[in-house]
Amino acid sequence: MQNFQFHNPTRIVFGKGMIAQLGKLVPENARVLILTGGSSAQKTGTLDEVRAALGTRHVTLFSGIEPNPTFETLSGAVETVRSEKIDFLLAVGGGSVIDGTKFVAAAVPFEGDPWSILKTAGRKVVRAIPFGTVLTLPATGSEMNSAAVITRRETHDKLPFFSPHVFPQFSILDPTRTFTLPERQIANGIVDAFVHVIEQYLTCPAEGRVQDRFAEGLLQTLIEIAPKALATPPDYDARANLMWVATLALNGLIGVGVPQDWTTHKIGHELTALHGIDHARTLAILLPSVLQLRREAKRAKLLQYAARVWNITDGDEDDRIDAAIARTRDFFESVGIATRLGAVGLTRDAIDPILTQLEHHGLTALGEQGDIDLPASRAILEHAL
Amino acid sequence: MQNFQFHNPTRIVFGKGMIAQLGKLVPENARVLILTGGSSAQKTGTLDEVRAALGTRHVTLFSGIEPNPTFETLSGAVETVRSEKIDFLLAVGGGSVIDGTKFVAAAVPFEGDPWSILKTAGRKVVRAIPFGTVLTLPATGSEMNSAAVITRRETHDKLPFFSPHVFPQFSILDPTRTFTLPERQIANGIVDAFVHVIEQYLTCPAEGRVQDRFAEGLLQTLIEIAPKALATPPDYDARANLMWVATLALNGLIGVGVPQDWTTHKIGHELTALHGIDHARTLAILLPSVLQLRREAKRAKLLQYAARVWNITDGDEDDRIDAAIARTRDFFESVGIATRLGAVGLTRDAIDPILTQLEHHGLTALGEQGDIDLPASRAILEHAL
Repeated sequence: MQNFQFHNPTRIVFGKGMIAQLGKLVPENARVLILTGGSSAQKTGTLDEVRAALGTRHVTLFSGIEPNPTFETLSGAVETVRSEKIDFLLAVGGGSVIDGTKFVAAAVPFEGDPWSILKTAGRKVVRAIPFGTVLTLPATGSEMNSAAVITRRETHDKLPFFSPHVFPQFSILDPTRTFTLPERQIANGIVDAFVHVIEQYLTCPAEGRVQDRFAEGLLQTLIEIAPKALATPPDYDARANLMWVATLALNGLIGVGVPQDWTTHKIGHELTALHGIDHARTLAILLPSVLQLRREAKRAKLLQYAARVWNITDGDEDDRIDAAIARTRDFFESVGIATRLGAVGLTRDAIDPILTQLEHHGLTALGEQGDIDLPASRAILEHAL
Repeated sequence: MQNFQFHNPTRIVFGKGMIAQLGKLVPENARVLILTGGSSAQKTGTLDEVRAALGTRHVTLFSGIEPNPTFETLSGAVETVRSEKIDFLLAVGGGSVIDGTKFVAAAVPFEGDPWSILKTAGRKVVRAIPFGTVLTLPATGSEMNSAAVITRRETHDKLPFFSPHVFPQFSILDPTRTFTLPERQIANGIVDAFVHVIEQYLTCPAEGRVQDRFAEGLLQTLIEIAPKALATPPDYDARANLMWVATLALNGLIGVGVPQDWTTHKIGHELTALHGIDHARTLAILLPSVLQLRREAKRAKLLQYAARVWNITDGDEDDRIDAAIARTRDFFESVGIATRLGAVGLTRDAIDPILTQLEHHGLTALGEQGDIDLPASRAILEHAL
């Protein structure tokens, strides 16, 4: 096992009716900015529930944070925080709203051009406004980590930043708040969480036995609950398990002390930035090809994955690896998510611009071994056609 | 899944050589009290390494915290903190030293008789002195939780307290610091961690799918690594995995949103308080009998435990449950820990005084259903003879 530090101070407040706890969680005299996406938090009543729980606190609303939140939109929120003398942020939404809120929290007290927060991956962030979240869409894990991904519309850049200052102080996870989500978003959440786990697990053996077992447990749970989580009417326990899995998939725990990959995410971000494809859909398209083309480097863990997650123990090693990759692809397709670039209308012509962006962002040595260069990324994209 | 809150702000600093990080982790101008057990931290060089890392800080040493740390001894440390104007505590040792440090941290600013911290299970604790830990013995999980168990020698009381104010600020887990431990203590640690997991897992089904998978992963890992963890010369990865498993076994994560039992611990504490038996040994003696006598209430989870942890899938339900309990007992015996009261020299005569103490401590409704009354505890003890 590699040396590591683990520190995650976010308080999770989980369950039916827990939004009422906001009255205790948000400082009494706070001037609160609620940040939301489109109109769904209003339509579903979540926003009213939040406002009621905040009582007499001074509350301002900033809505319109888009999927793949943009620097351009968030800069407006930064202005609002300053002009309204806000001292507490409350994200109400999914990963995009939470990521956007993290950026706002860091940008308000930031000295200099706030885009440099992204250009330096968060290293220059030395403080942030405190914030909490009310999660309505289980997927990204942003509710219990210190990372965010922000897009600059102008330049098609989609870049992450990381800072210990942007852990949410608390996150409220009420599974009933997912009941009104469209099936497409639940499916995206399942795939997003699944691939978050895979990118921290399917690398090379590192004697992180607990990390492996926890990762496998998250994958097994996702596979078990996916059909129920997608079903209508919504099943509380399936949604509760999905919500908790998605949080644990990216709260840092399963990734400590072991190698990590993130190739699928890095290439996927370029696909989203250039073509607006849902984040999870880029992952479902790329992951099977990453596993196929990296099968030698990942051989030992692919065999472990086959055996422990999919119960594949018959056949020779290559048969088992083939079967595990096929089952992974089938799983994504089973929740209604395509696994080929063709399915989202992209052809071979799309590949060169993606490679140009990868190069522009310095992403020329991806993977747990740092050996996925641009030709290797090209091969992955070609395999995904 | 039941509603829950999860909040664990302890920073884990894990790996070889990490004691050197103390210079960054402890406030620069702190007046530090190092709390230790016997002389082993001195003999093994850990104490010298700690002192070196603390640099020029004002450091006082309080040694002599015993296994099952006593109120009597710890009251001396409370005096030292006051007289030396200490503002940071550093526990260097195992669970007993850390538990003792938690008590000292809470007792120093406590108004009134400090024993009432135990009598009210921590509910009256409103602040504590900040502290960190350097763990040398993987077992109790105290390094990443907010609980402690303190013994009053005078009255044979062994009672727990809980408070969000006694989370360690950080815990340094260097697996090489376990290399000099006697085999008996490694074996105790394996059993202690195993039973911590079981008491949060082997109850009744509650749709805590991830909690179940994580618990099973911890148990599987303990079973896999036990022989290597006990071997000489010590194996770094086996000890690293043992250390991380023991921490995760009781940091709150696997117990959220699901029923918990703790019968084995509660009766075990009385055995230790009356007869000085190692904590882990009381657990190994009691757990198989608890599982046997609670087999109906725990039937569904016993079958899940049999299948997922021990791969027992043949035979009818009762056969599988019998086999799972037998494998559990065999596992404890395989690490050299006896599983009968007779093996520690206790006979039927010992039972009445234990029941008297359980009654004295109000422990007359144990178990996840609260239905283990004194006659049920008697039956468990008789079965364990």
